[in-house]
Amino acid sequence: MADGSLNALVEALRRLPGVGVKSAQRMAFHLLQHDRPGAQLLSQALAQAASNVRHCTMCHTFTEHELCDTCRNPQRDRSKLCVVETPADQAALERTAAFKGLYFVLMGKLSPLDGIGPKDIGLEKLFARATDGTVQEVILATNFTAEGEATAHVIGEALKARGIAVTRLARGVPAGSELEYVDLGTIAHALVDRR
Amino acid sequence: MADGSLNALVEALRRLPGVGVKSAQRMAFHLLQHDRPGAQLLSQALAQAASNVRHCTMCHTFTEHELCDTCRNPQRDRSKLCVVETPADQAALERTAAFKGLYFVLMGKLSPLDGIGPKDIGLEKLFARATDGTVQEVILATNFTAEGEATAHVIGEALKARGIAVTRLARGVPAGSELEYVDLGTIAHALVDRR
Ligand SMILES: [Zn+2]
Ligand SMILES: [Zn+2]
Repeated sequence: MADGSLNALVEALRRLPGVGVKSAQRMAFHLLQHDRPGAQLLSQALAQAASNVRHCTMCHTFTEHELCDTCRNPQRDRSKLCVVETPADQAALERTAAFKGLYFVLMGKLSPLDGIGPKDIGLEKLFARATDGTVQEVILATNFTAEGEATAHVIGEALKARGIAVTRLARGVPAGSELEYVDLGTIAHALVDRR
Repeated sequence: MADGSLNALVEALRRLPGVGVKSAQRMAFHLLQHDRPGAQLLSQALAQAASNVRHCTMCHTFTEHELCDTCRNPQRDRSKLCVVETPADQAALERTAAFKGLYFVLMGKLSPLDGIGPKDIGLEKLFARATDGTVQEVILATNFTAEGEATAHVIGEALKARGIAVTRLARGVPAGSELEYVDLGTIAHALVDRR
């Protein structure tokens, strides 16, 4: 792959997370040999998203407007605020149709080793929002990873100190699964969190 | 991920080979949250490559010109013609610096199940080139996979029937592997030991 604009394409593709030089070459070959309309489409989608997408001033998720669709929806229960790490996590919760409240999207998680602190995930904004008098309950729905748990812990402690009711998504046995195939840690948590 | 241009970006990223909906969301999140310059860069690189990159009229590899750099290079030995599947395979051979001839890049391989026949990989063009009186030896450097071997076999038989000297990269390249993943030394040895 010798020429200028081909090398430039391979280099640009390598900036995508999880894409090394081999995958980038494969992607460039595929687009140029088999899917030029796809290349044009992706080019336009990137330019449009990069210039149009900003953050909802209320919940921080991606949107093209001042406020996202969810925050603008008058049907949503404004007394419940669910804290998630990313828009993809929010989408997963929305697909359950089990939550009618609003969200605060951290757009990340606390990660001291990567230099990501409270400011980077908008915690001051979250605390102001949680104490605005409308919110009655904050539901922590960060991931059940080490960093997600640590983030939930920090937020939970800070909100409790401000007198806010805080809950955490229950840890437990996934629906539809058989106990003998569930790992011990999950069963132990489900026992502790039994209700 | 609710809004229009964000969904459009995720959908466009999914056209990349090996990218499912989760990776596409991850890529979109990364670019919009952490690397907007990367998104702009990739957008431009895609548009430029899609409109500028064409095929070398002599060897069929990607180039921005009528002829690619290799075909235009007067230092290359025009009596030797090396047949490879893709520009990435050609690049792997070039990195060994063990071959000074020219190339013919099939931009694919024979694959009857996918409907890819001799026309799709330019075999008539290859045969015309191999019998132009300048080429003294054709070196088959397709991959050592089932389809690569079958492609080499078909080309080899056709060229031998036309009285052309044909060699194949020596075994030494482990069977079942693809050239772009093979280390330089192995490829260099296989070139020297070609038969
Ligand atoms: Zn919002
Ligand atoms: Zn060429």
